[in-house]
Parts: sequence; structure tokens; C-alpha cells
Amino acid sequence: MKIDILSLFPEMFAGPLTQSIIGKALEKKILDIEVTNYRDYTKDRQHHVDDYPYGGGAGMLLQVQPIFDALDMIETKNNGLGKVILLDPAGRKFDQSVAAELAASDHLTFICGHYEGYDERIRTRVTDEISLGDFILTGGELASMVMIDATVRLLPGVLGNNESAPGDSFSDGLLEYPQYTRPAEYKGLQVPDILLSGNHQKIREWRQKESLRRTFERRPDLLVTADLDDQQKKWLQSIKSDNQA
Amino acid sequence: MKIDILSLFPEMFAGPLTQSIIGKALEKKILDIEVTNYRDYTKDRQHHVDDYPYGGGAGMLLQVQPIFDALDMIETKNNGLGKVILLDPAGRKFDQSVAAELAASDHLTFICGHYEGYDERIRTRVTDEISLGDFILTGGELASMVMIDATVRLLPGVLGNNESAPGDSFSDGLLEYPQYTRPAEYKGLQVPDILLSGNHQKIREWRQKESLRRTFERRPDLLVTADLDDQQKKWLQSIKSDNQA
Repeated sequence: MKIDILSLFPEMFAGPLTQSIIGKALEKKILDIEVTNYRDYTKDRQHHVDDYPYGGGAGMLLQVQPIFDALDMIETKNNGLGKVILLDPAGRKFDQSVAAELAASDHLTFICGHYEGYDERIRTRVTDEISLGDFILTGGELASMVMIDATVRLLPGVLGNNESAPGDSFSDGLLEYPQYTRPAEYKGLQVPDILLSGNHQKIREWRQKESLRRTFERRPDLLVTADLDDQQKKWLQSIKSDNQA
Repeated sequence: MKIDILSLFPEMFAGPLTQSIIGKALEKKILDIEVTNYRDYTKDRQHHVDDYPYGGGAGMLLQVQPIFDALDMIETKNNGLGKVILLDPAGRKFDQSVAAELAASDHLTFICGHYEGYDERIRTRVTDEISLGDFILTGGELASMVMIDATVRLLPGVLGNNESAPGDSFSDGLLEYPQYTRPAEYKGLQVPDILLSGNHQKIREWRQKESLRRTFERRPDLLVTADLDDQQKKWLQSIKSDNQA
């Protein structure tokens, strides 16, 4: 996968992109990331990339020209543009299914704007407007790093055997069950006996029930779309009546 | 505000925390950030911080002891712990109101786990479990940076006059209206005439309507809780009938 990032703060990416899973994907050459400072593409003599909004108002806006020219360069260099992603609060919300969709693409280009806003015409070159959530960030840099992290770990060969994704929350539409590791007691806090029992059938049941219980208690909205089997439905019923008791 | 971060990858924070708004807040001494590698607190001879899950299963879990000891150190150093935040998919969802709540605190401590999971007993020291959204990340580092960015820009004195927050999306419960800056025409793409008219009353109206229109078209869920005045309600009615026509 090729990822291009348009940003005024290329230095922000140095740490996050070399550490952890993204760094490993780069090393294994599963991934190639290029950060372009679009200030290098401005035709303004003072190298400004922003200007006052037409019609007045506070804040400066990102201009069309530097973004268009930087996109042209990326398009020429890569023989085309893949998905062009604008990080915007008005976009559809990023979630695991969007990450999977992005992971299926060969080429992603992220445009990192500023919180002040950007010229509306930039949207004409954009294929995907995505929002990380209902909050305001200084710029798109951190949001794009989050999306890249969630996407890249889905690429084949990125996660090792020890780090497999299937047990994660959301992969089966439910929250994860509680987990414990050594020691069995720490400052009076105990690991549940069942997990020390060695009875794998019972442990599997306990985990499935706890996963359902946690989802029911904290994210009942997920149960609406979760694909539960008959046994899970029965357990869910008993969890519900436990809670009413 | 004091922010402590517990992480196995302190290097990830170097770029993001020195650039942009967070860097300015640090310079102005509105903010002090300390990143602690909790691997330094392990009592394991090989400096492992993770171990196999009780009851079997793939993936390693973060152990209780290094986290508890690192929290003890932070507590002693700061004469107490403020909010202790665990980044977890089962937590409540981060949004602008959570950012505002965090911004009202003097001291935040973020625990950045691994995607494999952590010992359940770590939750006993946590005051706030927060989720960035319904997706899986490699670790809590990027999620905590996002939350820190959204929070810190709300601290008094962080944003300059030119960057004021009130016009942003969500601050009035609606998406932002389209904005434009020079040139008035670029590659055939025009700025709407009204914005060049100089009629400030009309411009204000156009913006309020476009903000309502965009919210109606893309995020109708926001209109349920938005506090609209009579004029806005009238405009919304006419936008709705435009769309049905």
C-alpha cells in the first residue's frame, strides 16, 4: 500500500510512523508512506497557504491552489490518485468497517487541513470525507495517523501470529471479555477462579457470557447489529433478567 | 494543566507534542507533559511488561504491577492523581463534551495499553474509561494524543484571537457552513456571488442556512439536540421542503 500525506507539519509524523506496528509494516515493505509539505507548492511569495475568508469572519482558510498542485504532483508520480481523504467533521464517521474499506485500497492520500477550515472547492478533488468523531482537533495530522494505524494493522502480513486481530473488540460485533494475567493475586485483587480451573469448555462459556454482559451493560447499541447464535441469545436473556433482579 | 502519559513508546510523542497548538501551550507553560515508560517499573528480570492470559488464548496481556507502580510514582510526585484515563473500546465515547470535561481538570494521566489487552485489575485504579471510536488501534498512544489535542485547545490562552474556537463545527451543535478564500475563481470553480456582495446581513443569513442545510443532509442526528431559534426552525422547514421537491 502507498500512503501519501499532505501536511504543514511533516515533523509530527516522524515518531508515530517509525514506532510500533506502522514502523514494522514500513520495514517489511508492506507499506510506503510519503509526507508532502504543501507549503512547498504555494505560489505565494511569502509562502502563505492560507488567506482570509470571503464574506468576513474569524480564522484563516486553506487555499485551493497549493492543495491542487500537490495532488497533481502525487497523481503524476503514482500514475493516478487512489482514495483522496479529507478529514472533516461533516464526513462519515470512521469505524472498523471504514478501516477495512481503506485497507482494500492500493493508494490513500490524506489531506490534513487546519482547524480554521479550508476553501470549499478543495472538496471537488476528494473521494472520501471522513470524520474521526464529534470533536475538534488542531489539524488533521493526528486524525490521519489514527486512521492509518487502524487501517495498516489489517493489511496481510502486518500483525504477527501472537497479535492476531480476530479476538479484538468489534471483530465479532461485541466488546471483549475481561482478561487476566499473572500474578493470580495482586494487592488483594484476585483472578476469577474459573480462569485458573483448566476447564477449557467452562472458560470458553464464561468468556462468551462476559463478553455479552459487558456489551449489554456498556454498549447495548452493538447488540442490535451483532450476529448472535441461539446459545448467545439464551445467555443474553439470562443476563437481562439478572440485571432486572 | 499537568498531563502524565504512561507508554511503552515515549518516542512516539516527540513530534506531535512539540508541533502545532500543543507545542505552543507547552512553551507558554499553560501545559506540562511528562511521558513515563512503564517498562522502567517492571520487576521482571527481562523487563517484560506482558504475560500470557489465564485460561489461554492468543495475545499477551499487560500486567498489573508495572502500571500500579508507575501510578504510585506519579501520585507521590504530584501529591495525588487527577483523572486516570484508560483508552478502551468499552469506554464512553470521546466527543467535544468529554474534551470540555477533561479541560476542566488540573491533572490527567493517560494509560496507553496495547491492542492485545490488559489485566482487568488495572481498571481498579482508573477513573475514566474512554473510547475514541468503534475501531481497533495498535496502542493507546495515538488515541491519547488526539484527546490531548482536543482538550488542550480548550484551555484558556492556548488559541490566539485569530483561531478562536466558537465558529467551529459542534460548538453550536451544527456543522460549519462552506467557506471560501481567494481567488474568486480557480480552474473554473467559483466562489458564490453572495460572499463577494459585501452585504453582511445577507452573508450571515446564507451561512446560517448553509450550516443548517449541511447538518440536515449529513448529520440529521445533530439537529435532534441542537438548540435552534425560531428563525433557524423556519429555515430548516424550508430546507426540508426544498429536499422533498
